[in-house]
Amino acid sequence: MDVEGAIRSRRSIRRYKKKDVSDSVVRELLDLARHAPSSMNGQPWHFTVVRGDQTKKKLVQIKNKYCPVEKQAFRADLIQHAPVIVVVSVDRRESYDREIENGVFAAANILLAAHDKGLGSVYMSAYRADEPGVSEEIRQALGIPGHMDPISILPLGYPDEIPEAKDFKPLNGIISYETFGNE
Amino acid sequence: MDVEGAIRSRRSIRRYKKKDVSDSVVRELLDLARHAPSSMNGQPWHFTVVRGDQTKKKLVQIKNKYCPVEKQAFRADLIQHAPVIVVVSVDRRESYDREIENGVFAAANILLAAHDKGLGSVYMSAYRADEPGVSEEIRQALGIPGHMDPISILPLGYPDEIPEAKDFKPLNGIISYETFGNE
Repeated sequence: MDVEGAIRSRRSIRRYKKKDVSDSVVRELLDLARHAPSSMNGQPWHFTVVRGDQTKKKLVQIKNKYCPVEKQAFRADLIQHAPVIVVVSVDRRESYDREIENGVFAAANILLAAHDKGLGSVYMSAYRADEPGVSEEIRQALGIPGHMDPISILPLGYPDEIPEAKDFKPLNGIISYETFGNE
Repeated sequence: MDVEGAIRSRRSIRRYKKKDVSDSVVRELLDLARHAPSSMNGQPWHFTVVRGDQTKKKLVQIKNKYCPVEKQAFRADLIQHAPVIVVVSVDRRESYDREIENGVFAAANILLAAHDKGLGSVYMSAYRADEPGVSEEIRQALGIPGHMDPISILPLGYPDEIPEAKDFKPLNGIISYETFGNE
């Protein structure tokens, strides 16, 4: 797939076929993830690849326990039904105060590369700024040390849905020239 | 360019040719930016396209004024020498507490699509969590309203440097299976 086509056609996928995702494909995605930019080239990433039902169940429970009221329509049960989950964490000691940016850039590569390989995924956060319990419980569930921050949870699987076409805001309304509002 | 090739070959570019970047190319990049995922499909983005020397100068001054000691090797002067700058902001009212994630996903599309079109860029942050002055002064410089958070500053230009090859951490050391440390 070319870059433009992949960016335009990628969508969040929340239903997956039973078909397994091989370890070699997962490693290809993580190889591409580490090509993301990172603050001061710190490359602070660690990727935990989860396949076990019990571990997935824990992640579902943590995510649902801390799910904000306004996001109840997007509960985390789908984690249980994805063949593989990648949890993206970053080492704070190598993140230069840009933990979230570093994590999200790696996740962005995974989402786009997954789509390119015929896989589907959906971005889920692994922390809440106002609820340290989310990170802490995810650390416990996966044995992640305290100097690392879990940032993203990315379910991966072969798509078993075709999402509806997305409407975009008009480009004119979201671009200003030189100063805000000057379209 | 295919997705994998683009991800593998993209690098941060800090020197740009005098050659201009047309408005139509910038709009193509921003069209692709809005295809990024966003929390609750909020599409909270606003892009401010800066070409004026005075505005660039203000951005340089703000960035350098608040540049942390450990990042002094990466001062912001290059903003002055890029033909065009895109400032990515997000509307907090449509961000669902994921301002940074939303901004970075759009920025990631811009960086990759720019590289795909032969342009270079480098990711720069438009805020510091511990220094609200950064966002506030950028808002003032660009007339961005208070309900919007500037997240990224992306200089764009045709590359006038070939960065050295990047060394990556070994893949084995950054992947765990099921629990952290289980390689």
